[in-house]
Amino acid sequence: MTTIQDVAARAKVSVSSVSNVLNGRTDRLGAAAFERVEAAIRELDYHPNQIARQLKTGHIPMLGLLVPSTANPMYGHLALQIESVAKEQYGYRVLLGNTYRDKDQESRMFDDLMSFGVRAVILVSSWTDERYMDAAISRGLAVVSYDRRAYPDENSFIDHVSPDNFRAAFMAARHLIELGHTRLAFLSPASKTNSRTNKIAGFLAAAQEAGLENSAQIIDGPGSAEYADSALAELGYEMAAHLLDQPHPPTGVVTVNDMMAIGLMAGLRNAGLSVPEQVSVIGIDDLILSKYSNPPLTTVRLPIEEMAQTMVQRVMLRLSQPQLAPEEFLFEPSLIMRGSAGAPPAPTPVSV
Amino acid sequence: MTTIQDVAARAKVSVSSVSNVLNGRTDRLGAAAFERVEAAIRELDYHPNQIARQLKTGHIPMLGLLVPSTANPMYGHLALQIESVAKEQYGYRVLLGNTYRDKDQESRMFDDLMSFGVRAVILVSSWTDERYMDAAISRGLAVVSYDRRAYPDENSFIDHVSPDNFRAAFMAARHLIELGHTRLAFLSPASKTNSRTNKIAGFLAAAQEAGLENSAQIIDGPGSAEYADSALAELGYEMAAHLLDQPHPPTGVVTVNDMMAIGLMAGLRNAGLSVPEQVSVIGIDDLILSKYSNPPLTTVRLPIEEMAQTMVQRVMLRLSQPQLAPEEFLFEPSLIMRGSAGAPPAPTPVSV
Repeated sequence: MTTIQDVAARAKVSVSSVSNVLNGRTDRLGAAAFERVEAAIRELDYHPNQIARQLKTGHIPMLGLLVPSTANPMYGHLALQIESVAKEQYGYRVLLGNTYRDKDQESRMFDDLMSFGVRAVILVSSWTDERYMDAAISRGLAVVSYDRRAYPDENSFIDHVSPDNFRAAFMAARHLIELGHTRLAFLSPASKTNSRTNKIAGFLAAAQEAGLENSAQIIDGPGSAEYADSALAELGYEMAAHLLDQPHPPTGVVTVNDMMAIGLMAGLRNAGLSVPEQVSVIGIDDLILSKYSNPPLTTVRLPIEEMAQTMVQRVMLRLSQPQLAPEEFLFEPSLIMRGSAGAPPAPTPVSV
Repeated sequence: MTTIQDVAARAKVSVSSVSNVLNGRTDRLGAAAFERVEAAIRELDYHPNQIARQLKTGHIPMLGLLVPSTANPMYGHLALQIESVAKEQYGYRVLLGNTYRDKDQESRMFDDLMSFGVRAVILVSSWTDERYMDAAISRGLAVVSYDRRAYPDENSFIDHVSPDNFRAAFMAARHLIELGHTRLAFLSPASKTNSRTNKIAGFLAAAQEAGLENSAQIIDGPGSAEYADSALAELGYEMAAHLLDQPHPPTGVVTVNDMMAIGLMAGLRNAGLSVPEQVSVIGIDDLILSKYSNPPLTTVRLPIEEMAQTMVQRVMLRLSQPQLAPEEFLFEPSLIMRGSAGAPPAPTPVSV
């Protein structure tokens, strides 16, 4: 294998000059020497050994990415965007861990990242208390968390990047209200995610603003982890029956995400109801496939590309400035009107 | 940071005894000493440094995974399964690279893997000739390729794992024929993937077996890389119009995958046609969301879990036995009958 010594010998410069070129300190070298080094690197097909570099710098150009599951198309898409930014803009590779939002999986991944010399981590949609990361952070890990807010008493050096989940659910509920719906529901698994809490608050705020707080329901499915991600469509499907069992079934439903909305629409069809004529459904995410559903899903789009960009940028900044005060970055979602939300059905006489 | 020496001192054993415990060679140690080492590891919160281990063994417990794009739910799901098997069964982490099937992206990833000390690679659905990998393999890389067959003249030490794509398209076309369709089409982007070639051959074989080779068409969309993955639904949507422009429009369509089938169904709806009453559509993959489409998508399921298991197992075996003769592993798909394929419409009189 070609070494840095081989490159130096061929370019007739010192090893430290080659190192300067490799590390972008080109101002310390004359133009002719710089060109000889570049030519030697090319001709000898020299690839600097990252492990050796890691032993010197204390870290490896690799970003740890923890997501609940890439089988959820939302996280598969986010992983793609994060990996692209890390690779194209920073020359970093991504070490992927699917955690199923499980604390043990997360802490095993943190251990492995430390032992590999990885010092930058993006943690997506974790359920767990971040305090267990404090030890890792004090050992030099830079952490950015997606879709989690800081605990009120939290004092960690962790940045938080999120869509404005309150606004997302608020927009969805307000759209239903503007269409004329008065019986509303928010549908989700009974999980402990921060994003769900904020979505519920936004949904209720829109209902309250319209004086509909008494006819706006929060309907929870089972909260087991297996429903957290790829099985959310299944849960939406199963919850259709439960929704219709209510004494005053809602005519307008906001779901915690698009997976659940797509499953719910299938469950409603299965129960003989048509969307949006009898029930309107609005999701949150705007998955690639959502516009091709039947009817096309009205949803609230989250700006994946922009959020991925900020996450990678911020974790890199934190890597070089570990004492940077933690910040929270909130991204504005946008309502995408398609065919799954319309006017409510004409009221039918109620026998009391 | 705790070192192996600290553990040895606390457990009152030699460093090599600790190393034996860490590497599973427990038979060389008495039970009491073994328990002391385990206790010391726990009490000192010792995590062996993978970088140091890498310098000794020449490789790092990390698996390189190259996929076209995790934004395609099929690859997001496959990445999840591969990562699970690698982590749970081998203690390996996954280094992810989205390649967009681009040769430069692939070869940059191979360079990075080598420089990180990664020696096991799974390459998913690449377009490119594998011969450029020969140099990497000769330097000790173990490679397993998904959904690519060996070139006839190829002599590389690469294993190939694939669904039986010929069978998948054969099953889909035969199902349409059994339902009574005589005007058939296979829809795909004009890509150069091996899997597409095999699917076309399987589709044509089923048509030929039924004497329908003259009314079975292969319809290609544009072949640019942007249509390779997440944009395939878009392409399916756009190709609906093209399909209907044919002098004798097909009544039964097999698409190269589910993404395209879901887009095609939306495009047909947009053109005023109903599925399956006027056109039957069958996909290949069985994405998590496919059963919730409207109508639920009839498709051919690929055994993702089993294929992921074989890929990881095989690349690990090859890592320890680099001279192992290359093998090809073909996995049987299965037809999943749902609502998007039915009997063809009653024939209408043709004016000549």
